[in-house]
Amino acid sequence: MPKEISLDHGSGGEASQELIGEIFLKRLNNRYLNRLDDSALVDISGQGVAMTTDSYVVDPIFFPGGDIGSLAIHGTVNDLAMQGAKPLYLTLGLILEEGLSMETLETIVASVGQAAREAGVKVVAGDTKVVEKGHMDKIFINTAGIGTVEPGVEVGVGNAQVGDQVLINGHIGDHGITILTQREGLQFKSPLISDSAPLNWLVSAMLADHAQGIHVLRDPTRGGVATALNETAGRSGVGITLFEDRLPVSKPVRAASEVLGLDPLYVANEGKCLVFVRPEDTDAVLNIMKGEKYGTNACIIGEVTAENPGKVLLKTRVGGTRILSMLSGEQLPRIC
Amino acid sequence: MPKEISLDHGSGGEASQELIGEIFLKRLNNRYLNRLDDSALVDISGQGVAMTTDSYVVDPIFFPGGDIGSLAIHGTVNDLAMQGAKPLYLTLGLILEEGLSMETLETIVASVGQAAREAGVKVVAGDTKVVEKGHMDKIFINTAGIGTVEPGVEVGVGNAQVGDQVLINGHIGDHGITILTQREGLQFKSPLISDSAPLNWLVSAMLADHAQGIHVLRDPTRGGVATALNETAGRSGVGITLFEDRLPVSKPVRAASEVLGLDPLYVANEGKCLVFVRPEDTDAVLNIMKGEKYGTNACIIGEVTAENPGKVLLKTRVGGTRILSMLSGEQLPRIC
Repeated sequence: MPKEISLDHGSGGEASQELIGEIFLKRLNNRYLNRLDDSALVDISGQGVAMTTDSYVVDPIFFPGGDIGSLAIHGTVNDLAMQGAKPLYLTLGLILEEGLSMETLETIVASVGQAAREAGVKVVAGDTKVVEKGHMDKIFINTAGIGTVEPGVEVGVGNAQVGDQVLINGHIGDHGITILTQREGLQFKSPLISDSAPLNWLVSAMLADHAQGIHVLRDPTRGGVATALNETAGRSGVGITLFEDRLPVSKPVRAASEVLGLDPLYVANEGKCLVFVRPEDTDAVLNIMKGEKYGTNACIIGEVTAENPGKVLLKTRVGGTRILSMLSGEQLPRIC
Repeated sequence: MPKEISLDHGSGGEASQELIGEIFLKRLNNRYLNRLDDSALVDISGQGVAMTTDSYVVDPIFFPGGDIGSLAIHGTVNDLAMQGAKPLYLTLGLILEEGLSMETLETIVASVGQAAREAGVKVVAGDTKVVEKGHMDKIFINTAGIGTVEPGVEVGVGNAQVGDQVLINGHIGDHGITILTQREGLQFKSPLISDSAPLNWLVSAMLADHAQGIHVLRDPTRGGVATALNETAGRSGVGITLFEDRLPVSKPVRAASEVLGLDPLYVANEGKCLVFVRPEDTDAVLNIMKGEKYGTNACIIGEVTAENPGKVLLKTRVGGTRILSMLSGEQLPRIC
């Protein structure tokens, strides 16, 4: 382990994994935490309950397609949904810098409220701390949440099966590229807009008739699609093949990525989920996704193989094959 | 409302109340949040569940009697216990400054683990974000938690009844005075030690046989005993009389308070609870408290009256009476 925390440790990639293994799991060892899914799965009087937390330090706090408030709701709603849970109740912890304008706070809290209403969740508890001016950046938000998991729903990053088709609900890279171009003050012809969105309705629609056929739900946030798939391959002990020519990347994101030298496969999304579906359910699940507000551009991007366990292979457009590793290093700090 | 956030808004006193009313309740209005207890009380498949969150920005992060890690566990465990809940599962959200030493992080996470074990709770989910060096102070922690509430337990800040005796489990002001003297580098002859502690075992011991007789549980954190009692008086529509000569203040805290010009009644505690008990249960509950690790110095400090509804009166040592208002302004920033 390095002697100091670096930005890499917040990347969601290899350094984050090492930190979790070396510091957190050793000191806080328990079977719930050890599963390392997007949410923990606990039992409350016989009812399966998913529980999760995320802090948000995104910079800038307002961006096309959302702000730190809506992002904080979407992120935690989605982490619950990725466990197959129905998100119900959220908590909201704010850390504010002295001098933050009341109007800014009010706008963000209004955005929290609107996002919560769209997702059908209630913010039931909150806390506000204030730190002296200059000792932090404007506003940091934590949201934690709980939701119920129905019997028969068993999704998990370790559950991918050979033959599963890998689906995604739309274009990749939009959130991360939007934040970076905003932060750097870059202008592109076509507008870049974050994909930040609540995915719980999409997930519940898929699970309603296909709970048995859906093995993994994973939102490719920090570290992007490549990192989320690597985690899934590693934890499930399977290989994953990804087809480059099927990867949905919007024209503006492709253009901006080329200028910035970023690979959209490693860029954070905030309204996307990877869905691992057994073959016989794939067409039906894909159609359900396409019928949902946040799934109109859904498509199949890969499949699970017995070969190359723990690895993700990219079949390139020109017919070659290369290993797609997990994000190493920090591509983009404070993306969420 | 002022145009900017000030340190007062994080004080737990009047400005915090105004912020909650004007910004949060208006935008996030729902019956769970509106109760404004230490925890929200929700229903999961017929089981009462308390849910709460707190962020911790204490400065310094290490202090006699604890650190930001143990404090983050105690604070959230106690907020659940104050709802009469049995704390079960916590989440841990860390925001770290780039450059924080790994050893510091490891010490804090070990402290989180130890505090969680003492309280009998499990940290089931976590998140780590890293912010660029100089853009925040070292480490901020958020913990959220859930716990179950048994039928028959109905405590709440609005439930105080005329005739209730007001008990506390020990000395007041220890945490706040300890933090302030540490931060200012002040030295006193007698050591000052934070009272940070988990109160859930104390609470469950009291509730076991006296759930019907206990009306309010409240931990006097930010804003101190005076603020917690004012909230209770206001929300319950009763008066509270406090007896100055019964207030338990340790000699070192009294001495330091005099030097610093602080009133221990307004200073934060992190291991104290105010207990409102009907007269016929008072002796028994007091004895239970005294038999618990964190209740040996328990005593009766006041009583609930029909007169002066919404107000807290202090009967002074010299025989006078004065109104004890809620904390206005910020006595001490970043105390927790």
